[in-house]
Amino acid sequence: MRELGCDGVPKPFERVVRANIGDCHALGQKPITFIRQVQALAACPALASSAAVPEDVRQRAQEILDDCTKSSVGAYSPSAGLQVVRARVAQFLSARDGVRACADDIYLGSGASDVIKAVLTMFVQDVDGKPPAVMIPIPQYPLFSGTLAELGLRQAEYFLAEEQQWALDVDELQRCWSRASQDCAVRALVVINPGNPTGQVLTRENMEQIVKFAYEHNLFLLADEVYQENIVSKPFFSFKKVMHEMGAPYSSMELASFVTCSKGWAAECGQRAGFVELRAAAAAPAFRVARAVMQCPNVLGQCILDCVMQRPAPGDPSYPQFAQELSDIRQVLAERTQTAYETFNSIPGYFCNPIDGSMFAYPRVSIPEAAQAAARELHMSPDEFYCLRLLEETGVCVIPGTGFGQLPGTFHFRTTILHPRDEFQHMMDSIRRFHHDFLQRYS
Amino acid sequence: MRELGCDGVPKPFERVVRANIGDCHALGQKPITFIRQVQALAACPALASSAAVPEDVRQRAQEILDDCTKSSVGAYSPSAGLQVVRARVAQFLSARDGVRACADDIYLGSGASDVIKAVLTMFVQDVDGKPPAVMIPIPQYPLFSGTLAELGLRQAEYFLAEEQQWALDVDELQRCWSRASQDCAVRALVVINPGNPTGQVLTRENMEQIVKFAYEHNLFLLADEVYQENIVSKPFFSFKKVMHEMGAPYSSMELASFVTCSKGWAAECGQRAGFVELRAAAAAPAFRVARAVMQCPNVLGQCILDCVMQRPAPGDPSYPQFAQELSDIRQVLAERTQTAYETFNSIPGYFCNPIDGSMFAYPRVSIPEAAQAAARELHMSPDEFYCLRLLEETGVCVIPGTGFGQLPGTFHFRTTILHPRDEFQHMMDSIRRFHHDFLQRYS
Repeated sequence: MRELGCDGVPKPFERVVRANIGDCHALGQKPITFIRQVQALAACPALASSAAVPEDVRQRAQEILDDCTKSSVGAYSPSAGLQVVRARVAQFLSARDGVRACADDIYLGSGASDVIKAVLTMFVQDVDGKPPAVMIPIPQYPLFSGTLAELGLRQAEYFLAEEQQWALDVDELQRCWSRASQDCAVRALVVINPGNPTGQVLTRENMEQIVKFAYEHNLFLLADEVYQENIVSKPFFSFKKVMHEMGAPYSSMELASFVTCSKGWAAECGQRAGFVELRAAAAAPAFRVARAVMQCPNVLGQCILDCVMQRPAPGDPSYPQFAQELSDIRQVLAERTQTAYETFNSIPGYFCNPIDGSMFAYPRVSIPEAAQAAARELHMSPDEFYCLRLLEETGVCVIPGTGFGQLPGTFHFRTTILHPRDEFQHMMDSIRRFHHDFLQRYS
Repeated sequence: MRELGCDGVPKPFERVVRANIGDCHALGQKPITFIRQVQALAACPALASSAAVPEDVRQRAQEILDDCTKSSVGAYSPSAGLQVVRARVAQFLSARDGVRACADDIYLGSGASDVIKAVLTMFVQDVDGKPPAVMIPIPQYPLFSGTLAELGLRQAEYFLAEEQQWALDVDELQRCWSRASQDCAVRALVVINPGNPTGQVLTRENMEQIVKFAYEHNLFLLADEVYQENIVSKPFFSFKKVMHEMGAPYSSMELASFVTCSKGWAAECGQRAGFVELRAAAAAPAFRVARAVMQCPNVLGQCILDCVMQRPAPGDPSYPQFAQELSDIRQVLAERTQTAYETFNSIPGYFCNPIDGSMFAYPRVSIPEAAQAAARELHMSPDEFYCLRLLEETGVCVIPGTGFGQLPGTFHFRTTILHPRDEFQHMMDSIRRFHHDFLQRYS
């Protein structure tokens, strides 16, 4: 699509706006200085004597190197990750949830996708002659559907309730489970919170309903919580915390929770770091062995995770700059979510739920019947047709809802919203103008 | 095994010597300064203004950052890797082989293991109702056998000819192929050169025989050439070069060649970088699509590959230090391979081929019948029994030949040989003493 402007044919727009990939750095977000300084010193400790870096950076890099064999990030770490990093993850989780986390339950990976695939692999066996299935939300970031297909697992789709701000409706979960259970053994339930592409943060009440549902049906809960640091104003509750506070029998349920450095304020997509906290007494030993025979995730990526799990604190030399950078990032998120929400809802035929977090908007668009017919002529779905026209006429590149799933008869697209302000405004203006013309053409 | 010394029970040795993992940095090899400085500046460009780094380091880091979206290593690169790095790989290969390599044939991965698995995935389909098989050497680094098992591919084992310095004997290849072809479709031939664990470098004549064999049987050649920079004195010929110089029809055969930054003089195991050059007209489009839907390999790892592919040249500010570091690394390899070869062959009952390269020795050991009987009593193979006793009595940890495969009735172990000189000498002395005692006990 980037080549749209490069074929010499004049286009009705000046530039392509890429709003299709959730990559904050590619949208202009600046890296966190503390993270990058720690990485630089871990890679090249000799720089510590010559470069202008704060004392807490030196200290952090040294703590990590002390846990590397022969103090080199070029030596293999344990497959699950450096002990110092896993301990820091456990500390972070303990403080977040008010219940002790154990470093032995933490497995680092090359981003969350690596460990998500590893955890889903736990469910590939048939149960009593029935093929295994995993419940996933629709709409849904297609990592899950893609991985299930790769592993030969059936996907049982439940629809998020757009009219209830993308909540999980227990009746819908029940419908999905009952239908899938006719010919499958439903093994696990995937919940994405905050949502991707939907951007909602689940209420605590809804989470408790989900936990009870999973308990009743003996489902392993997979909590994709990678956007937990990308929330504007609502509180974030992890599923682990909710389960713990619900008490027995829920507090001892099996759970896998995923976190990545590609999201959050670090947003280091290109550096491939993440982890799963796996609480699964029965399955853990086999999982541990499966991970142990693999090579470790890259060690400089593990450094990022270390920094994210224990950020500079007030009083640390790096704190003032860190606090300013964090504040800037949060301000951009707060502004863009609000503007996107207001703008989309001000366009006739658009509906957009409040965006609690993540870095996306997933507005619903009314597409006139004539346009739907034109799409069918081209063997496209109406939302694909809409997004392709949007790209061709404005240069704005978004992903049609077909890529994430949607209730039949509804049409959406996902757009990232973290562009620089002028580009973001240009994008929103382009969409508004385009939709106005589109409606005129097809009404 | 490291816990051997930690249980409070007195041991007959002072320290554990880990000779089981091919991890040079863990054995004390120092990282290449140029590589680490480039990584540090790529991670933290602001350091360039304050740190004492040579101009060619700044320039290299800048070239890489210029190819990163918004100049951040935290943005996703293309899935196949940064264009600047792939172009540098192609340049390196073109100069090495005397035949033009194309950046479009280069796919970066998280180490070679990642791309080896991806390439093997090309062969999972049945052919005319027959299950697919891949020919692999015995002995063999178990990455291949493990990956074949994971992918559900049959492995067709051919034995390396220990008496011909671990060459590939065409009669043996033919025997393996014929036997496997009875109930499988043999799709591909894996050759590891230089050998792991065997350390040989194949002669050019042998390589030409292998190419002809692969051509005659329509086999896709997978050349694991990851140790090509770990050779003491022989010349290295890539299979691509040999095929090219053999001319038609061999010069247009399909080939996948693997290289990794975990080996060679960089030896950055913990940083997960490698690539495959894939020449496969028919299969390339599907392979490209399969890689494109994955996330990129970590970008700071890609920086290492860039440095390995274009090292500092005479006249560059970094050259003197780089040349010294490289010379030190090569001297250690030359010394240790020679000493290991001589020492093992001086132990009664040991035989060791000349070690041309890699970082391993794979000596054959005569195990007395009484010891073999003792092993059977414990349900162990004789080489496992031998290595376990060696560990318990000397603290030297090596891997029994059973882990790599060996001709039935022969017994081997693999040991790394790149330890610091005093540790290496201690290890060789320990093995000699142990073997003497072992023979006395079981003769």
